[in-house]
Formats: sequence, structure tokens, C-alpha cells
Amino acid sequence: MTSESSPLERMNAVLSGKRLELARLLTEVENDTPAGQVVLDMLFPYTGKAHIIGITGSPGVGKSSLVNQLVRQARKTEPEKKIAVLAVDPTSPFTGGAVLGDRVRMRDLYGDPGVFIRSMASRGALGGLALTTGALAQIFDAAGYSSIFIETVGAGQSEVEIVKLAHTTIVVDAPGLGDDVQAIKAGILEIADILVVNKADQPGAESVVRTLKGMIEMGSASSLRDHFGHHRDENDSTFSGEEPSSDWIPPVLPAVSTRPDGITAVAEAISAHKNYLIQSGVWQKRDRDRLKAGILQTLQSRLLTDWQAAHGSVSLDDCVEELSQRKSTPQEILRKLMA
Amino acid sequence: MTSESSPLERMNAVLSGKRLELARLLTEVENDTPAGQVVLDMLFPYTGKAHIIGITGSPGVGKSSLVNQLVRQARKTEPEKKIAVLAVDPTSPFTGGAVLGDRVRMRDLYGDPGVFIRSMASRGALGGLALTTGALAQIFDAAGYSSIFIETVGAGQSEVEIVKLAHTTIVVDAPGLGDDVQAIKAGILEIADILVVNKADQPGAESVVRTLKGMIEMGSASSLRDHFGHHRDENDSTFSGEEPSSDWIPPVLPAVSTRPDGITAVAEAISAHKNYLIQSGVWQKRDRDRLKAGILQTLQSRLLTDWQAAHGSVSLDDCVEELSQRKSTPQEILRKLMA
Repeated sequence: MTSESSPLERMNAVLSGKRLELARLLTEVENDTPAGQVVLDMLFPYTGKAHIIGITGSPGVGKSSLVNQLVRQARKTEPEKKIAVLAVDPTSPFTGGAVLGDRVRMRDLYGDPGVFIRSMASRGALGGLALTTGALAQIFDAAGYSSIFIETVGAGQSEVEIVKLAHTTIVVDAPGLGDDVQAIKAGILEIADILVVNKADQPGAESVVRTLKGMIEMGSASSLRDHFGHHRDENDSTFSGEEPSSDWIPPVLPAVSTRPDGITAVAEAISAHKNYLIQSGVWQKRDRDRLKAGILQTLQSRLLTDWQAAHGSVSLDDCVEELSQRKSTPQEILRKLMA
Repeated sequence: MTSESSPLERMNAVLSGKRLELARLLTEVENDTPAGQVVLDMLFPYTGKAHIIGITGSPGVGKSSLVNQLVRQARKTEPEKKIAVLAVDPTSPFTGGAVLGDRVRMRDLYGDPGVFIRSMASRGALGGLALTTGALAQIFDAAGYSSIFIETVGAGQSEVEIVKLAHTTIVVDAPGLGDDVQAIKAGILEIADILVVNKADQPGAESVVRTLKGMIEMGSASSLRDHFGHHRDENDSTFSGEEPSSDWIPPVLPAVSTRPDGITAVAEAISAHKNYLIQSGVWQKRDRDRLKAGILQTLQSRLLTDWQAAHGSVSLDDCVEELSQRKSTPQEILRKLMA
């Protein structure tokens, strides 16, 4: 593949599993180049098969090593299936960024042609992170990767965004974290399809398992999802509240991710959740919701581009100036712009 | 004020500092009620004066107690100035949520009529968090609060969003946090105008101060902001890269937020940064950028509403169905929708 290859040639190279062309396309799409977007769009008909698994949790719980173990195990039990790992890192140029992260994470899995690991830097992505992550996952999906693990470091908005991408969300917890961390943990509990208590060989692990099980029993899955649904954006149809919600009760599974202990149970829970999604129709529904949200977002930005082309940017700058001097209110300006 | 009060009466009540009406409006705007939006819009001409200060950092570094000390100190030195605190909590119904947070935080400042503390739940806000936080800050601004502290718990996307709202961003750090936490910390370092090393009486604090100072020297302010600017969204004009970037070097200040130690230096740095912003013209520029981003966002969602009204929702659902069956690519669908 040279830089002169046609989009069709590039698409076929990705579809036939050429790693170099895959890597090149991932980079182009991450950098949002027009050529990359063309190939990405052409790959779309080949997507929709991969199982996307989100892994999240507070810093220090051992998410990377858990993913590492899950991938190793899957490669042993089903060697015919390819697996991708997308690590979303909030690292900065200070720490060496994504490249170093790749190398550290790849240590165990490096050299396995059935595994592809990719780090993304989340810094500065400013709302575009979920979009880019989704696009990269789509490329892996088309390229025949059966499972795509998306791992995020941190706790907050980005975790909630993962839910929209992932079919199955694993929230990882561990004993020995401070009180402040507990509060954050509670906030992302409601997005969990599977809970893993990592470092289960350390003091306090049993108590964490008990507490989490108690929380799951207390807040039934249905009331949680309802709650979640009520806060969604108006234009965000990802959670439509129509999903059958009470059928799946998130299991709480102890694990020691530096050893294979407990990994089999986690892998089984991932499979069980996938089966549940497909049998209940939630898989298809989420796919449709995700596609709808995507098309709405693209449509919206396209409508703005067209509006700007028709109205010119001069009047918009004048409006901003008026606002800046507090001479008009935003609603007054909006009425003027839409007139 | 009764529920029959006119928008004008309600606006005047907020402008004249009526706490009850202020609280009522905050709730309405948080719940996005039409009546609340009308009053919010009417208040706009009275905004633009408050200094918005974002406080962020990893869990457990003591952000709340730092804010507490800063507010107490400011109330002593400038008692004529009112201060608001907006705490953005990723807590969930599991932990008792925002109400409990209010009470815990208010302990010290409760009963001071010059202080208003408000907690927001970030769970489920799904991208709308920054919008709502900005609206609440605007209400405090119009109501004559000179300083508005916005405190977020967590690390990730939401911290980056704060930068867009805050004039001055304080990143809080502390000794004794794990390696994983250090990585996250590095990610948000680049948004810091002021760095505070809290728990400065604990072992390792001096080393944290040294490390942070080294990082600040290494990556000059200018290269950091350039880097940041290159990753912004296309439609996000908040960071336009035109700001004078090398004039302000973020100070690294030790503090012990459970006592007033070091608080004076932090308060002085906040003032100094405000003066820098005003004298360099960055204050006005950021205000304009923020207003422009806001009007673009509103315009965009309005254009979509109008488009949907004109085209009906039936065709959109058909398009989603076609996508769902992988019969067309997103670009093909978009061309069809825009035809």
C-alpha cells in the first residue's frame, strides 16, 4: 500500500487484515483527514459484528492488567478470534503520551498477530473523544476483530460517554481506595453491566464485594436506568428508556488481575451479557440508537455549515460583538439570526 | 415572590439579591424549564462582571476544604463582596446525592448571607453539564456575586470543559497519591493557571512542588497552549490560539487547606491572574469566544429542530433503518437527507 492507493484498495487491505494499512487508517481517522474519512465511510457496511466492551473505574484499580488477562485468556480459548484494545489515556506530552503507554501495555501481548493494541490521547479532544473512539472501533469491527476492549482511565463524563459506544460496560473497583474515590465510584456504578472487584487478594476486598452487591440489590437495575434516562440530552436518543431493563442484574466478580484468578468468571460474564443483549433485542436496538445519534450529530453540523455559507460569517461576528457588549440577550440574537 | 410573579418581577428579585428567588431560579434552570430560561435570558445584560474560578484535581486532594478556606478568607478581607460556590458532584442516588453534599460543605459557611453554595449532580448530564453549569454561573454573576468558585470532583473530560467556563483554573495536587493518579494529574496540568500542592504538611509535599515546578519550566506555557489548541473541535472557537500565551507562568503554591496556611498566597495568585487577564485583553477575548461558542451551539440545535419540522421524522427513521441493515453508508444517507 502506497500513499497513491485508491480508497477501494485501502478498504480491501483493511478488510483482508493488513495490519500496516489498519494502523495507517487509524492514525488518519484520529487526525480526521478527508482521505481517512472516505475509507472509514466505505468500511461501514462491514461493521456491526464486533462486541464492544468498555472498561472503566477509578485510577489505580488495575484496569489495564485486567484487560491484559482477559485478552490473553480469550486468545487461548478462541485463537481464531482477533481482539483489539483501545486505551484512552488522559496523558499529556509531559508523560510521554500515548506511545509509551502502548509499549508498556503491549509487553505481554506483543507479537501476537491476533491482537491489536492502540492508545489514544484524550487530552484536548474536547467532546470529540467519543466520536473518534467510535470511529476507531468501527475500523476494528470492519477489519474482523470480534471483541474490542475500550479502556478509559479516569472518572467522570468520559465514562458516561463510553456507555454509548460499548455493548457491555465493566466497572472495576478495588479495596483500599479513599473515601473521595468511593463517591466517584458510586457515580459510575449505574453504568455497570458487570462489576469486577480487582486486587481480591488484598484486605477489605470481601467487604467491597458485599457493599457492591448490596448497592445492586438496593437500587434495582430498572430504577437506575430510569434515573439515567431522565437526565439525557434532548437530542440524545441513545438511551430511550424503552430497553427491557430488569432482566440483567450486574454480577459482582472478585479478581486478581496480575494473576489469571477469577478471569474465567469475568470472561463468562462478558459472553453471558452478549447473549442477553442479542436475545433480548437490546443489541439491535442500541445499534440503531447509536446510528441515529451519529447521523443527527453529523446532520446538525452540516446544517450549521450550510447556514454559515448562506448567511456569511460577518453577521455572526456582529452578533457576538453585540452580546459581548451586553446590548442584546442570546434569545434576541437567535431570533435575529433565524429571521 | 409567588409562582404567579412575572418574569420581570422575578428578574428584579434576583438582581436585588433575594436568596429565595435566586435558589428557585437555579433549580428551574437546572431542570431546564421554559419559565426559568426566560428569566435567565433576561438576566444576560447584567452578566460579565464575576470572576469565575475553576477548581479541579484528582480525588482526595482536598479541593472542597481549599475552596472553604478561600471563601472564608475572602469574606474576611472583602466583606462587601458576595461569593458563590458551585460544586459539581458525580455522586449518585446511591450516596444521597447533592443534598448531603451541600450540608457537609456548608458547615463552615452556613448562615453567611454573602455566601451561596450550590451542588449539582453531574451524573447523567451527558454533555449538558458544562451548559448547565455555565447557566448557573450566569445567574450568580447577574445577582452580583463577585467570585464564583466551580469545583469538580474527578479527572477527565469534565475538567477540560471547566476551562471553557472559568477565567482562572486552579489544579490541586497532593503528596501520597499513586502512580496511576499521577498520570491523570499530568493530563490536567496543562489547563492550570495556578497549581496548589495541598496537604503540604505531609511527607513528600516538597517533592511534589519540585516536580510540578520542573514540569512548568519544561513545557513552557506557550507550547502547552499551542498543543491544546491544535486538538480543539472545528466548531469550538473557545481556544483560538491567538491569546498571548507566554505572559502568565502558573505558580506552584503549597497549602494546608484544613488550616489557613498558604491560603493568602493562593488568594493573591487568583487576584494577580484576574489582573493579568484584564490587562492582557484575554478576559474580554475569552468572554467573546464563550458567547460565540454558546450562540453557535444554540443555533445548531435550532437549525436541526427547524429541519426536522420541515422534513418530518419518518424519513429519518427510514434512514436509520437503512443504516442499521448496513445497506447504505452514513455519507450516502447524509447526501440523501440534505438533498
